Amino acid sequence: MEDFERRIRDSFARQGMMNTLGAKLTAVSSGATEISFSSSPSLTQQHGFVHAGAVTTILDSACGYAALTVAPQGLEVLTVEFKVNFLSPAVGERFVARAQVKRAGKVLSVCTADVFLLHSGGEKLVATMLATVMNVPLTG
Amino acid sequence: MEDFERRIRDSFARQGMMNTLGAKLTAVSSGATEISFSSSPSLTQQHGFVHAGAVTTILDSACGYAALTVAPQGLEVLTVEFKVNFLSPAVGERFVARAQVKRAGKVLSVCTADVFLLHSGGEKLVATMLATVMNVPLTG
Amino acid sequence: MEDFERRIRDSFARQGMMNTLGAKLTAVSSGATEISFSSSPSLTQQHGFVHAGAVTTILDSACGYAALTVAPQGLEVLTVEFKVNFLSPAVGERFVARAQVKRAGKVLSVCTADVFLLHSGGEKLVATMLATVMNVPLTG
Amino acid sequence: MEDFERRIRDSFARQGMMNTLGAKLTAVSSGATEISFSSSPSLTQQHGFVHAGAVTTILDSACGYAALTVAPQGLEVLTVEFKVNFLSPAVGERFVARAQVKRAGKVLSVCTADVFLLHSGGEKLVATMLATVMNVPLTG
Repeated sequence: MEDFERRIRDSFARQGMMNTLGAKLTAVSSGATEISFSSSPSLTQQHGFVHAGAVTTILDSACGYAALTVAPQGLEVLTVEFKVNFLSPAVGERFVARAQVKRAGKVLSVCTADVFLLHSGGEKLVATMLATVMNVPLTG
Repeated sequence: MEDFERRIRDSFARQGMMNTLGAKLTAVSSGATEISFSSSPSLTQQHGFVHAGAVTTILDSACGYAALTVAPQGLEVLTVEFKVNFLSPAVGERFVARAQVKRAGKVLSVCTADVFLLHSGGEKLVATMLATVMNVPLTG
Repeated sequence: MEDFERRIRDSFARQGMMNTLGAKLTAVSSGATEISFSSSPSLTQQHGFVHAGAVTTILDSACGYAALTVAPQGLEVLTVEFKVNFLSPAVGERFVARAQVKRAGKVLSVCTADVFLLHSGGEKLVATMLATVMNVPLTG
Repeated sequence: MEDFERRIRDSFARQGMMNTLGAKLTAVSSGATEISFSSSPSLTQQHGFVHAGAVTTILDSACGYAALTVAPQGLEVLTVEFKVNFLSPAVGERFVARAQVKRAGKVLSVCTADVFLLHSGGEKLVATMLATVMNVPLTG
């Protein structure tokens, strides 16, 4: 396991929110991550779809960790901002978010991520994120 | 209680995700809503702050319901897209999100929302959303 | 020439703003467009770079026309909203914007577009857009 | 005239793009700016409305200069990213953009800005921006 992968798996395990969402970090490589999760009644909005906010939370973690794989040694990442477009209702059982770094900077990185619904016939695009992440020193 | 308030309170109560976040709908008026929530270990990211995604989830519900108060009779709302800027880490106990409709259209509405940390000295701005919401017929 | 290409080239020619920017529609295909432009003192911001707004204007037209290639017969497109990230200063001579439709819907389409600086060694990413475009009937 | 106002008026005068758009800096105060402009055939899109990109360019300059009024001494500003929602077609004669800093940070500032159509009966909201601006040292 690469150093950055261990670092990211440790960090992911400390996220109460990822546990609440039942999310799993299913892949990490330099500049990219993949997080998988399942639908659950605890994650729904009023029509029974997975809440746009739950989808966004997974996308945000996927982008942040993708940025962290390429952040300068000793720095952490914080989300500056993101935009998400919702392309089809998050109706289904299993979903996967895939993030990649579009540009890694000294201070700021820009990442994109997509969430797909997994079904028997393949994958369907549910949402897409464009995010700005900042490298910051964090202590404690 | 106004008709739209009853409709929105019923809808809010059906959101598994709002229950998971411990969020309460603390105010509803025509074109505006307020949702309150508290920090919890189940909502944290890796540094112990409330996850940007949890903050976003509350903002999204606040915007969606603000749009719903002014949606044409018989229509529901779906989030088309949003952008969120994170202005200070979500560190603290109690938070409140306040949303308002900036423009209500027949098909699309545009809403803004802010999340504030409540502390003894007042309020601190944590994050701000600009969102596009679509009026849609939904059955079932 | 395909029908949609003729339609888009006619529309592009009617854009006073594209003429003001010296922009050329250099490629059109189903779901994608390419617009090229050059730096000029009339397009600069205060440091002599091409203004972020000029870059955005090209990206917006590229996305709008990409959406128009796949819009239902007889409908026009209007930009609902977009987000742009600026990844490196627009310093150089020649630039190209490439847009593609990420999802084409009956009412709304979502497009992405990138602007690249063209230089002797290849291309450098300058900015990226994520846009929502609406299909609308327009008369007159 | 305050120091920051002189600095911003000098900078504005160096923007070729503001001249191309016929834009005037009509107000500057600490944390806020106002830029006015008029419709012109040179700024139109294919339906004769002012191009969304022209509107965005004005909004971007208004936000950048609002951020510059509160930037640390000796630093310049660059746009990191922005989102714009278009609320009604930019059809009319005179427009005004008003920007204000929502949060001024050491490295990043967040600004909002609106563009209004001015008409005999008052003002109509045309577009709204939420922007992230970075303080940077710039030489030369």
